[in-house]
Amino acid sequence: MDTSSVVPSRRAVVLLSGGLDSATTLAIARAAGFDCCCLSLDYGQRHRVELEAARRVARELGASEHRLIRLDLAAFGGSALTDHDIAVPTGGVGGGIPITYVPARNTIMLSLALAWAEVLESRDIFIGANAVDYSGYPDCRPEFIAAFERLANLATKAGVEGQHMTMHAPLIDSTKAEIIRQGRALGVDYAITVSCYQPDPQGRACGICDSCRLRRAGFQAVGVTDPAPYAEAC
Amino acid sequence: MDTSSVVPSRRAVVLLSGGLDSATTLAIARAAGFDCCCLSLDYGQRHRVELEAARRVARELGASEHRLIRLDLAAFGGSALTDHDIAVPTGGVGGGIPITYVPARNTIMLSLALAWAEVLESRDIFIGANAVDYSGYPDCRPEFIAAFERLANLATKAGVEGQHMTMHAPLIDSTKAEIIRQGRALGVDYAITVSCYQPDPQGRACGICDSCRLRRAGFQAVGVTDPAPYAEAC
Repeated sequence: MDTSSVVPSRRAVVLLSGGLDSATTLAIARAAGFDCCCLSLDYGQRHRVELEAARRVARELGASEHRLIRLDLAAFGGSALTDHDIAVPTGGVGGGIPITYVPARNTIMLSLALAWAEVLESRDIFIGANAVDYSGYPDCRPEFIAAFERLANLATKAGVEGQHMTMHAPLIDSTKAEIIRQGRALGVDYAITVSCYQPDPQGRACGICDSCRLRRAGFQAVGVTDPAPYAEAC
Repeated sequence: MDTSSVVPSRRAVVLLSGGLDSATTLAIARAAGFDCCCLSLDYGQRHRVELEAARRVARELGASEHRLIRLDLAAFGGSALTDHDIAVPTGGVGGGIPITYVPARNTIMLSLALAWAEVLESRDIFIGANAVDYSGYPDCRPEFIAAFERLANLATKAGVEGQHMTMHAPLIDSTKAEIIRQGRALGVDYAITVSCYQPDPQGRACGICDSCRLRRAGFQAVGVTDPAPYAEAC
């Protein structure tokens, strides 16, 4: 795993959800000189409006390509983000792994990024995983990213041929405030990102789900107003 | 990684392609007493008739459930199995990684199995990967399976909670002949399996692609006739 910005003029696959973290990650990859091919997953998430945000972010931040791949994780269920019968918790960020956790989501997303990277002959994959304000997801931890990098180098043609595949998680150790500061310095317009787990059809955030709470606390710590639209004043 | 048959009366997710290896793997998992939930991937493969075979195999071998998940890997291309503009080689099994290699396919399939296993609260995943007659795919090697098991235990709720996730690859060290012998002893009817990369619309094998060649050589070594239909006598 490499958490720093590195090696200019190479092609990278960047996982892009349309939220604050992945937008910042794309800005970091661009600033490091990577030619960025963005990948978003339509996995049956209830907050599908984030995919529209991903399109805007890819365009605004100068991605070379943006590809959307469909995979119906709702077929497995087990998460408030894919099962409409499970409510998104709004009572505040608690301990343990929350019901918004989507089983193996980051493993699946990195696997898909790996497939595309192989075809593109890219050796670099960027993911906006974050272990600080991470809301308790096991697949957002540094040891998970490191284990995936190890796997990627055994799983692929590139790895077998002795070329190193690198998983970049540049935000893994950052607080939400640090992420926002870094993104603002790189010119990210957070008004076009969507972090909310249950935005309304107009894309306005609820303000009270875990993701909204973490985002709002981050902007508060930075001392600036979140430019994204909220359904009501929180 | 555990390559032996173990622990009765537990639920397992079994990756099932409809070919010889995965059918044998399902038979082994059943014989070990596992309640088997089979997962097949419709990934845009040109040999989609194997998915019909997967249905038959799941039913015949007593799977509790069979789920088919769609994911369009053809969107990435780069393989003769998903890109109809790339011909399937028929000149014999050569050295190196062949063009039938689908980038990151086993990583993706194991990731999906992992997602379903988490929802089912299963700790056991079976895959028919085989390192002997494996035709040069990097993601069929024992070190790949071991690295995925390590990842699975970092990626999941179960792993975080101290329960061990096991990747079973019971055929990893077997020759094709040994696989066929084991499957026959367990009562697998190989007539209903499809291994060919380019079967005709009736599901009859071409007999000359790498997969057909490896299968035929296996049956020859065992000294029995392959009961599967071939387009013409090979």
